[in-house]
Amino acid sequence: MIVGRHVIVELEGCAFKVINNPMKLRVAIRQAVKEAGATLLHLHHEMFQPHGVTCMAVLAESHISIHTWPEHGYAAIDVFTCGRTQPEKAAEYLAKALEAVHIRTKIVQRGMTDIPVMEQGRAML
Amino acid sequence: MIVGRHVIVELEGCAFKVINNPMKLRVAIRQAVKEAGATLLHLHHEMFQPHGVTCMAVLAESHISIHTWPEHGYAAIDVFTCGRTQPEKAAEYLAKALEAVHIRTKIVQRGMTDIPVMEQGRAML
Repeated sequence: MIVGRHVIVELEGCAFKVINNPMKLRVAIRQAVKEAGATLLHLHHEMFQPHGVTCMAVLAESHISIHTWPEHGYAAIDVFTCGRTQPEKAAEYLAKALEAVHIRTKIVQRGMTDIPVMEQGRAML
Repeated sequence: MIVGRHVIVELEGCAFKVINNPMKLRVAIRQAVKEAGATLLHLHHEMFQPHGVTCMAVLAESHISIHTWPEHGYAAIDVFTCGRTQPEKAAEYLAKALEAVHIRTKIVQRGMTDIPVMEQGRAML
């Protein structure tokens, strides 16, 4: 049973002024949550020296995270959402908001196998 | 340039009493951070009704997240850490702490391509 989709995005060529600014990332992540059709429960950021920001959103439907390396124009994005949501839209929005030039995306289906755990256990023997 | 390893783990057959208990998950995640050799900056949890917990740790080296579906014995784990850390050890520890019977793991290398962004842009034309 698939519980959700986890969109993993590597953004390159991002704008330094955006990805080194926690306030801009907080605004971007709030809008990304709306784009996905998800519900924000908690938002936290950390600023690193001399550069770099982490911004994490806990959602009713899982999470969104942004970790940035402004000196390289690089941001590592995760959008993992469950239920009737569209994590791809959140990821697309973040790529635009961070002014990325190059985007690489992986989508991982998250969830359980459809085989009962006891049978899986036996299958492993 | 690889900045870190992102260990994605699907745990099945977990103990209901552990994965529906935010306090036990907070204790587990604190120990997992130590196992990885990482530094905890912020820890947050949300409890859902009738079941389910999210526990998120922001690290100096990226993040660890746990989202649980206790009614299915399922937990979705992410351990994304950078630098001289061992995310695999954190993931192994969490599988034991949550008493998982079946474990599926993917490791995603996170980071940048070694091609300058402008050349990537031209290569896409």
